[in-house]
Amino acid sequence: MNVTDTLTIETPGTHAITISREFDAPVDKVFRAMTDPELIARWMGPKYLTNVETTNDARHGGTWTLVQRDPDGNEYAFRGVFHGEQTPELSMRTFEWLGMPGHVSFETLKLEDLGNGRTRAYNVSVFTSTEDRDGMATSMESGVVEGYERLDEILESL
Amino acid sequence: MNVTDTLTIETPGTHAITISREFDAPVDKVFRAMTDPELIARWMGPKYLTNVETTNDARHGGTWTLVQRDPDGNEYAFRGVFHGEQTPELSMRTFEWLGMPGHVSFETLKLEDLGNGRTRAYNVSVFTSTEDRDGMATSMESGVVEGYERLDEILESL
Repeated sequence: MNVTDTLTIETPGTHAITISREFDAPVDKVFRAMTDPELIARWMGPKYLTNVETTNDARHGGTWTLVQRDPDGNEYAFRGVFHGEQTPELSMRTFEWLGMPGHVSFETLKLEDLGNGRTRAYNVSVFTSTEDRDGMATSMESGVVEGYERLDEILESL
Repeated sequence: MNVTDTLTIETPGTHAITISREFDAPVDKVFRAMTDPELIARWMGPKYLTNVETTNDARHGGTWTLVQRDPDGNEYAFRGVFHGEQTPELSMRTFEWLGMPGHVSFETLKLEDLGNGRTRAYNVSVFTSTEDRDGMATSMESGVVEGYERLDEILESL
């Protein structure tokens, strides 16, 4: 388990990564910032990467894409599909980095109203193999920590 | 672990169920029987249920549905979405029983050519929680065992 401020990353069992993070903003603002592709482009991922493409068709069978670019011009592409209607209570999607095609995870996101205008985001990612889980666990932390720090700033401006 | 003839069901870790089964038919026939909705309707699930609706739009973002009916007329509906192109080497989809909405699993299927016209189907289902996994593990066995027995008969006729 790794704790950074109000962010908690856990890896219970062998196939899952759970991430829990509090935000100083109400549920509707957090949900908007996590589903509007123009807002997603401003916070998703580690700070040294720029999001140059974001699509987010958040309906059952809808797809999402994300392309990130580093300072040297290298690009990293991700994609997935949504399962079910996306609501603050429950959003579900698949996740694939096209640099390792076929290694796909399934993500659920729940937003909990903590009162006083605060929200807890609770994310569970499950992987088809423990090897896929371990590979992602080591690489996702900086992206999540820094991405959520940028999200904090965006939420203040909404 | 539970072994029935050539079927093996394992539950490694805490979030996954793996199913491995050999078929006396070549890969292309097994793949066709697992993707053609009219053929799926003839074998999927336990024998006491009749498949009254099957759709299978097997493309990235495509959806599938299944409705089963028991002898008393009760209906059980399932749905999901496909991730990526479906090939014999790798097919990926989400799975939800609408009787327990929101408890969604992610399934991968690989068909391996064993030679001599035989095929091994290797399926991994991962669940968001260990509780979901345990709940499904107890209820899916008869459906898988009996469904694959019906699939054996269909493969002989293709």
